[in-house]
Amino acid sequence: MQKGIISLKTPVHVTAWAALGGKKEGEGPLGGRFDLTDPTDRFGEDTWEKSEAQMQKQALTLALRKKGYDPHDIDALFAGDLMNQCTSSAYGLLGFDIPFFGLYGACSTAAEGLILASLLLESGQFERTAAVSSSHYYSSERQFRFPVEYGGQRAPTAQWTVTGAGAFVLENAGSGVRVSEVLPGRTCDKGITDLNNMGAAMAPAAIDTLTRYFSESRYKPQDFDLIATGDLGYEGAKIVRDFMGEHGFDHNTKYDDCGLMIFNREQQDMHAGGSGCGCSASVLATYILPELQTGSLRHALLVGTGALMSPASVQQGQSIPGIGHLVHLEREAE
Amino acid sequence: MQKGIISLKTPVHVTAWAALGGKKEGEGPLGGRFDLTDPTDRFGEDTWEKSEAQMQKQALTLALRKKGYDPHDIDALFAGDLMNQCTSSAYGLLGFDIPFFGLYGACSTAAEGLILASLLLESGQFERTAAVSSSHYYSSERQFRFPVEYGGQRAPTAQWTVTGAGAFVLENAGSGVRVSEVLPGRTCDKGITDLNNMGAAMAPAAIDTLTRYFSESRYKPQDFDLIATGDLGYEGAKIVRDFMGEHGFDHNTKYDDCGLMIFNREQQDMHAGGSGCGCSASVLATYILPELQTGSLRHALLVGTGALMSPASVQQGQSIPGIGHLVHLEREAE
Repeated sequence: MQKGIISLKTPVHVTAWAALGGKKEGEGPLGGRFDLTDPTDRFGEDTWEKSEAQMQKQALTLALRKKGYDPHDIDALFAGDLMNQCTSSAYGLLGFDIPFFGLYGACSTAAEGLILASLLLESGQFERTAAVSSSHYYSSERQFRFPVEYGGQRAPTAQWTVTGAGAFVLENAGSGVRVSEVLPGRTCDKGITDLNNMGAAMAPAAIDTLTRYFSESRYKPQDFDLIATGDLGYEGAKIVRDFMGEHGFDHNTKYDDCGLMIFNREQQDMHAGGSGCGCSASVLATYILPELQTGSLRHALLVGTGALMSPASVQQGQSIPGIGHLVHLEREAE
Repeated sequence: MQKGIISLKTPVHVTAWAALGGKKEGEGPLGGRFDLTDPTDRFGEDTWEKSEAQMQKQALTLALRKKGYDPHDIDALFAGDLMNQCTSSAYGLLGFDIPFFGLYGACSTAAEGLILASLLLESGQFERTAAVSSSHYYSSERQFRFPVEYGGQRAPTAQWTVTGAGAFVLENAGSGVRVSEVLPGRTCDKGITDLNNMGAAMAPAAIDTLTRYFSESRYKPQDFDLIATGDLGYEGAKIVRDFMGEHGFDHNTKYDDCGLMIFNREQQDMHAGGSGCGCSASVLATYILPELQTGSLRHALLVGTGALMSPASVQQGQSIPGIGHLVHLEREAE
């Protein structure tokens, strides 16, 4: 019988985090909460790909600095991004000399990294791990759609790839926000082929994971101060809310999507909302974790969502598989 | 202090495996040991990308069948490949409904997957896991260099991407070949920029991992019946052998490289040898594991090597980072 929810009995804490954002992210509702935003989106580099790598480097540097850690204090890094061959992670984290596990979970990578980083701490095999992920609007547009110089028209259902990077330090010792449960996602494909509606392509995977979670868990949707999907945007979040109504979501369920939380949809004209590995990583580091540590949240569920297609697979007529990795975060009991 | 070698105290076994290969692999010295080779390299599909996905699907299906397992008997899948956005894994393993951890370790992915699959079994968090990886000559050439129809001339130092897929089932219970130690690799970049000499780019990472291993381990190079790097080919293997001479390799050290083992260099004209995620996965499944289970090997080290660049990073003038993930496999004591 396949394993379902994994409860972490040995406490695992997210003890430090940092996030960098670009211009639009800095202008959004969470803008003031980033450690650093760069209105040029360049982070000192001369290509967008190098800018994205630089964001990962700086995010991890800042997160380590908050705890006074040296890279050699970290036993393993779990990192990924959307670039072909995950080069933002490979190049951005090159100088740290930390054992490196490269991940590809598309936009779910932040949650995938947190799950692996947590499980290997709970087991005692590692004492301190870190997870890093990023995305960048300009590098993603160039790779997945068109270079922005082309001036392509965006579809109303299209999402805006977040220029953002998040780094998270996890430990057995210490205190902070606890990772109390994890549920790794399964790939799901419901036949969506529209590259301009990734929210709809990923929603079934989020629903699969949430349904599996609530059918097995002792918690109900109403027990959470926040249930956040990673980057479904307006289209996908609506599908989740509608469908999960049949599975315990009601008007008391505080459901939101990181892609809707990071931008102000009315004022910023971001079409269906934010997306990308940097979307959930940024919202986690600028809102969910800080609020769990000091503020209004006590229990939060993050379902990191990812769409696992490539431009080539779509050109060959294949539909878009999605995945949703779930992490249950909770404020440490006083 | 950063964690080094991880000894798996709770026994973890590789209990079943399967490998598929293409035409050249079928004609090579390990050809008769594949579960299936297809002289068309197509595996029934109409694009090379779909062929590669099909290989992953069939490899996992065959590996599960050898133990009579249903996909729902597997708690987690660790899978990756070289395609942009790792689509061979995402599409190939779509129908299995197994919690899915997408990896990108370039050609080191088989070893990266074995490490994670083993650690999460040793911890007791999972009972049964699987690792799958693949590469395909025609899909790789098209993506990384030129479509083969272009008829480009290959450099003498160039390697031949293996058309191969390997799937591995790992368990706490049962018996078979033991994973006794693992050492995750760190990214290394020694400034190599030649896309046609990946062996030289990856060799420093293999040397970093082997040096770390032998400086900490109670084993010496001579204690192993085989020390195999993943896909350094002729150029890279020569660098490892020369350099490791200063670190304990002598004429008694049985060092080889999967990229040299999979093809007959004299008869097959494969230039510097094989490469790709499918290279070490195939050699592991057709030679190393079978020989550990029944034959001539008792202790084997596999250092899965990977080059973490992309065509874009090389075009932007960046050098090629490498990584080497180490797995110590041993025959179960009688």
